[in-house]
Amino acid sequence: MNPQQQARLEAIKRNWQQKRDINTRLGQIKTKLAVYSGKGGVGKTTVAVNLAAYLASQGHPVGLLDTDIDCPNVTKALGVKERPNVQDNRLIPPESHGVKVVSMAFFQENEEEAIIWRGPMIHNAINQFLQITDWGDLDFLVVDLPPGTSDAPLTVMQVLPLDGFVVVTTPQELAVMDAKRSINMVRKMNMNVLGVVENFSGEMFGSGAGEKLAKDLGLPFLGKVAMRRDYLGSSQPTVLKSAEVRKEYDHIFQGITASLEALGKSVAR
Amino acid sequence: MNPQQQARLEAIKRNWQQKRDINTRLGQIKTKLAVYSGKGGVGKTTVAVNLAAYLASQGHPVGLLDTDIDCPNVTKALGVKERPNVQDNRLIPPESHGVKVVSMAFFQENEEEAIIWRGPMIHNAINQFLQITDWGDLDFLVVDLPPGTSDAPLTVMQVLPLDGFVVVTTPQELAVMDAKRSINMVRKMNMNVLGVVENFSGEMFGSGAGEKLAKDLGLPFLGKVAMRRDYLGSSQPTVLKSAEVRKEYDHIFQGITASLEALGKSVAR
Repeated sequence: MNPQQQARLEAIKRNWQQKRDINTRLGQIKTKLAVYSGKGGVGKTTVAVNLAAYLASQGHPVGLLDTDIDCPNVTKALGVKERPNVQDNRLIPPESHGVKVVSMAFFQENEEEAIIWRGPMIHNAINQFLQITDWGDLDFLVVDLPPGTSDAPLTVMQVLPLDGFVVVTTPQELAVMDAKRSINMVRKMNMNVLGVVENFSGEMFGSGAGEKLAKDLGLPFLGKVAMRRDYLGSSQPTVLKSAEVRKEYDHIFQGITASLEALGKSVAR
Repeated sequence: MNPQQQARLEAIKRNWQQKRDINTRLGQIKTKLAVYSGKGGVGKTTVAVNLAAYLASQGHPVGLLDTDIDCPNVTKALGVKERPNVQDNRLIPPESHGVKVVSMAFFQENEEEAIIWRGPMIHNAINQFLQITDWGDLDFLVVDLPPGTSDAPLTVMQVLPLDGFVVVTTPQELAVMDAKRSINMVRKMNMNVLGVVENFSGEMFGSGAGEKLAKDLGLPFLGKVAMRRDYLGSSQPTVLKSAEVRKEYDHIFQGITASLEALGKSVAR
């Protein structure tokens, strides 16, 4: 074998080892949920953080994976102060409000720096997170996806055997169009959309567009999350402070469970 | 020369021809402005559309280039009904409210379809738009960037000799952090940030964060755009219907002009 062939063989072996490691890690997780939308700024991160905190508050072991590599915001939204413990290719995620968190933010020297990476680097980062993170046994892993239908969501869909997608939209027309695009992408990739959440619902933007979108596309409508002044900017998820918000997530989670069960998947109670 | 060398030479020639074509096209445009933010959903498209419509209403020849390839929304926000005229590698953009528009949306069979492209495809699409669009003589080209700091903004920054960036943020903490990331990216790429616009300013989210961000980073604060109920969802830019909004864009444009002139660039009046 010449050195070039040798190097190619090594790369194939590493790739195969990575896939095996990822499958072992993910084998310890019962339900893997993605929170997604085509458009940015509709509150994907807020919904992902609140959903994860809600599940943890019910006593479930829960992980939250931030796959927005160039603009990671999950640690800030969840008020994570600790850094992960990384030893021998094994990352132990820190916990906040009972949620284990992994995000690119841990690997920035300065949170304001721009992570200027083209797709292949983003692909590698997501694969490496999945390979080295030791989540332990989890009932749920919530995956916060970046906006758009390009590299990062595509990589997540190709690498992670997700049980289903929760699609977030707002009542605005452009957000609904981007939500349709993202639902069409999930379907093209032969994965499951569990339903639609309408975020920022209320007086300012109106309400009802999420339910209409769900109906138009033959999907369950999982519920509304009202627009509230203290929505962002706090490091404690609102679902942990407000009975009203808790009720909204109770409803959303009931819908997610029903969708998963309709697909023949069992859900931890 | 063997066929492989021949093919490589052809590719180099094509690439060189493309660069030459792009430079010829862009040579007809006096001022090239990008509207940018790290975070999605802060109203980049709204600001880009209103800024372009404002400039057109002052009598300037204006173009608007939507570089959000996977979620293009500019045509919808501007109510463009026509399709472009494409002949012999030459694209004549349609016009709406006096603004010439080019967007990936023109090339979708169905606006709800997902454009699932990795970075290199996005890179090619942006280059091709720049190569074949015949804008004619323009005073201003406004470029609407997609969120993030990955492929699409990186390609735009590498290919387009922009005169400067207008960074949009909202009063929310996470948007400000992403705005800082995007400003740091522009600076790393040795390009100019002309100033900061605070969008969605007002009662719901508060106000002042944009001005503070500008001050912290030593940048001009260009002004606020208030949050309004009819903000999106209409196909006529609000700047054309409301004297109040027009005043906001008057102010923003004065700031942009001052920043450009401080950089030694002349601006069409």
